[in-house]
Amino acid sequence: MSIRYISQKLAQQIDEELMSASGAFSLDQLMELAGLSCAQALSKSYSVESHKRVMVACGPGNQGGDGLVAARHLHHFKYKPTIYLPKPGSKDIYKRLLKQCENLNIPVLKDVEEFKNELKESDVILDAIFGFSFSPPLREPFDQVLNAITSTTIPIVSVDIPSGWSVTEGPQPLYTEKDNTQTIKTFEPDVLVSLTAPKEGVRNFKGRHWLGGRFVPDDLAKKFELNIPEYTGVDQVVELPSAKQSSEQ
Amino acid sequence: MSIRYISQKLAQQIDEELMSASGAFSLDQLMELAGLSCAQALSKSYSVESHKRVMVACGPGNQGGDGLVAARHLHHFKYKPTIYLPKPGSKDIYKRLLKQCENLNIPVLKDVEEFKNELKESDVILDAIFGFSFSPPLREPFDQVLNAITSTTIPIVSVDIPSGWSVTEGPQPLYTEKDNTQTIKTFEPDVLVSLTAPKEGVRNFKGRHWLGGRFVPDDLAKKFELNIPEYTGVDQVVELPSAKQSSEQ
Repeated sequence: MSIRYISQKLAQQIDEELMSASGAFSLDQLMELAGLSCAQALSKSYSVESHKRVMVACGPGNQGGDGLVAARHLHHFKYKPTIYLPKPGSKDIYKRLLKQCENLNIPVLKDVEEFKNELKESDVILDAIFGFSFSPPLREPFDQVLNAITSTTIPIVSVDIPSGWSVTEGPQPLYTEKDNTQTIKTFEPDVLVSLTAPKEGVRNFKGRHWLGGRFVPDDLAKKFELNIPEYTGVDQVVELPSAKQSSEQ
Repeated sequence: MSIRYISQKLAQQIDEELMSASGAFSLDQLMELAGLSCAQALSKSYSVESHKRVMVACGPGNQGGDGLVAARHLHHFKYKPTIYLPKPGSKDIYKRLLKQCENLNIPVLKDVEEFKNELKESDVILDAIFGFSFSPPLREPFDQVLNAITSTTIPIVSVDIPSGWSVTEGPQPLYTEKDNTQTIKTFEPDVLVSLTAPKEGVRNFKGRHWLGGRFVPDDLAKKFELNIPEYTGVDQVVELPSAKQSSEQ
């Protein structure tokens, strides 16, 4: 039985169930494990020897929170992360996660020009900008951010859904808030870290594909027929066959 | 420079600093990472093939919370944990951690006789009863629990400080609350998982010794001269030379 690609609605429902009174998880716990999964997947894809300098691009929502946790773990894994966080989320948890990174002296950039410059000095980018709640149009400065990521030649590791992609349809032409005739091309990441279960929009993703979030209760996985493959050892991520490999079989 | 064995007072101070406004960690985060460390250390010491059935003995405090998190991760690592929790802690976090385990259908025992019986069917015990805040006398049913653990022949993995040991002095004769002439012998675990930094009382521990808690900020480690050894890869634990190995060198 192959893994299920879930809809935006089901992804939201699973998160809600995990954090309900009966699921009993806190956002702190789930974000810690999700961010750790992302850091592990990056580490298993690009070694610290060859790809030490990691640009961690964070959006204002939970996806950005996962990015902040990942940046902290990457620091402990001996990478040199730099955080780009143009619009810090207002929730208390994001402030705490940011402070934890600042305490490790991880540089935090706010300005998009600084981001573009620093990107030239980076070995790999962790894209934690938009998650499964994203819908167009693109707001500033994320049009410039996505364009810069699309233009870069360094590898891109996207968290859950590549930023700008439709959660349902995958890559899509994007328009910006100030100009609905200007379309922006979305990028194809080299590596994807799906959290809990992959989303419908990444069904045809051709790159290296990891699944993270080794906390989904068996009963919940069964109820939603997620068909999660077996993780091995103490790993927090498991590699999925890519769409390319699957179609070749 | 060898690792520092810290006092009860310093252990408390480090925890307080991590969870202060400036440290910015939540108890949920630290307990998640500490419990994950314990599960990883057990897994690296006793494989799931040879030691599938794990008795996780939990005390009423934070140490028991670490045990509940470890039990959940051990379940995901494909072990078959059973939890013994005679006195559930009253904090909300312990209730949530317990519920998360119940949602995985992990058996939870409350009765000491059931614990003794189940111990006979177990392959390894994770001792998460008392942590660095423990001081005698022993209260019921923990006198019986410690006696049962001392009598068992299966391997014992202790969290942070073997239950009953003095945080400062190590193994000590214990007396019970109801009878201060009756002394109880403490046990010597096979494996120890020190969290954040090893405590003074385990300086002469002869077994296999892991350090967990890969979240201590560099500045804090430097300030307290912890001399934490380097973790490798994405591991959440690092093995320390045991007192036996050190004295042989």
